[in-house]
Amino acid sequence: MNFSVEYLIRFQHCDPAGIVFYPRYYEMLNQVVEDWFAEGLDWSWADMARQRSEGVPLVTARCDFLESSQIGDRVTFTLDLTHIGRKSFSLTITGTCGDSTRLRAEMVLVYVHTTDKMRAIPLPGELRARMQPYLKQ
Amino acid sequence: MNFSVEYLIRFQHCDPAGIVFYPRYYEMLNQVVEDWFAEGLDWSWADMARQRSEGVPLVTARCDFLESSQIGDRVTFTLDLTHIGRKSFSLTITGTCGDSTRLRAEMVLVYVHTTDKMRAIPLPGELRARMQPYLKQ
Amino acid sequence: MNFSVEYLIRFQHCDPAGIVFYPRYYEMLNQVVEDWFAEGLDWSWADMARQRSEGVPLVTARCDFLESSQIGDRVTFTLDLTHIGRKSFSLTITGTCGDSTRLRAEMVLVYVHTTDKMRAIPLPGELRARMQPYLKQ
Amino acid sequence: MNFSVEYLIRFQHCDPAGIVFYPRYYEMLNQVVEDWFAEGLDWSWADMARQRSEGVPLVTARCDFLESSQIGDRVTFTLDLTHIGRKSFSLTITGTCGDSTRLRAEMVLVYVHTTDKMRAIPLPGELRARMQPYLKQ
Repeated sequence: MNFSVEYLIRFQHCDPAGIVFYPRYYEMLNQVVEDWFAEGLDWSWADMARQRSEGVPLVTARCDFLESSQIGDRVTFTLDLTHIGRKSFSLTITGTCGDSTRLRAEMVLVYVHTTDKMRAIPLPGELRARMQPYLKQ
Repeated sequence: MNFSVEYLIRFQHCDPAGIVFYPRYYEMLNQVVEDWFAEGLDWSWADMARQRSEGVPLVTARCDFLESSQIGDRVTFTLDLTHIGRKSFSLTITGTCGDSTRLRAEMVLVYVHTTDKMRAIPLPGELRARMQPYLKQ
Repeated sequence: MNFSVEYLIRFQHCDPAGIVFYPRYYEMLNQVVEDWFAEGLDWSWADMARQRSEGVPLVTARCDFLESSQIGDRVTFTLDLTHIGRKSFSLTITGTCGDSTRLRAEMVLVYVHTTDKMRAIPLPGELRARMQPYLKQ
Repeated sequence: MNFSVEYLIRFQHCDPAGIVFYPRYYEMLNQVVEDWFAEGLDWSWADMARQRSEGVPLVTARCDFLESSQIGDRVTFTLDLTHIGRKSFSLTITGTCGDSTRLRAEMVLVYVHTTDKMRAIPLPGELRARMQPYLKQ
């Protein structure tokens, strides 16, 4: 299983050269993970933040920007879960528009308690179980 | 030679967990390069964009987020130029606050003509010459 | 006729106090107008920007923030067109979540040619005609 | 007394038309107030947020965008305090670049306790005293 979502490239994402300003791509990558948690894992960030005081900050990201995107493009982001660790997990997210691959990101996120100095804690068992089907063989 | 600049972590950079939201870090990384061009290389992005129709989009970035930053922190970003290619260049940017290293990024940027489909072009000789002293041995 | 669209309040919209950071609301207001142009008027900003070199910058905005929004809220934005001038038009946008009105904005936007120093120009007749049904009596 | 601060218009503030995207102006307006609190009132938002669980969300803003700003412009923002209420205060912020007035904003902010449902509370006496000299006659 993987998870896909399509975002419209909007005016607000684009820079004076008319292409997506790359920090906006990172906002989209964050949004893909947020949507996967809500829709794919039924583990909303609203509940995670407000009821559990937990979160999943980014530890490492490597991103290759292969072709540029412009206002009006519809970019499909596909998320693959590549590793589930004890306190962290790894993802690959690819953004495509038609035949064109726009970007490819590899990210490691860690599960933390937000009110205890962002200390890493083990992934809750229930969350881990819901992630399992997405783990790429 | 290297280039350093200090930014204040502001309210607007922080997320509900009270730490810098990572897309804001990428805005800061972009800003470090912009400041280096303006102050270190005397090659302002205003002139580059408006008079030359040129720009330096990001091709690849790898970033490790080592410790979190909070509102009120003053983070010093230090830029090292690690490679000058024919049409691209590579940077390492490290963000520190006191003894704490907050992030380390490796980035490759390419020199392009913005009105010709973002086509990569050779770095102008004058710009290359100004970059030279920053090249890390 | 009016135009409505629902946006999810996301992690990236919220500040350290856990509520929407108001510049993010202005991004949403901009997005409502962009969606209205695309879906309500069939006048996409992609074509307007790239093929016509035209745009609709904001001239005046008054916004009242009545109740705060949090991550996970779904806010419905309703747009009413209150005036069509020769070169500008006026909107009211209201954001609600259930019974709670979150914000109410009155905005004036002007139609401009972007490559000629943002000079205001008359609204194209075709666009004016498509706006007409949305004009509030 | 009033408070002034100059910001450089950066690449990241500008839209595909090459001018400041207005939500970025609202980020700057927020930053002006943040800088005034830190430098003019010695009441940092870091302490206010983290030690006091207090904040100053925006209640109402009216902003007129008079002339556009481009990358490389240096805009001076001047803040005048026009009213101090029991739980709120009113500001006018004007942004100028040379002889050109870029924007003028009137804002009302309220003092709140952030962990108690953003409930408005009286301005602390010490803060009120520090604001007093800035009150426009």
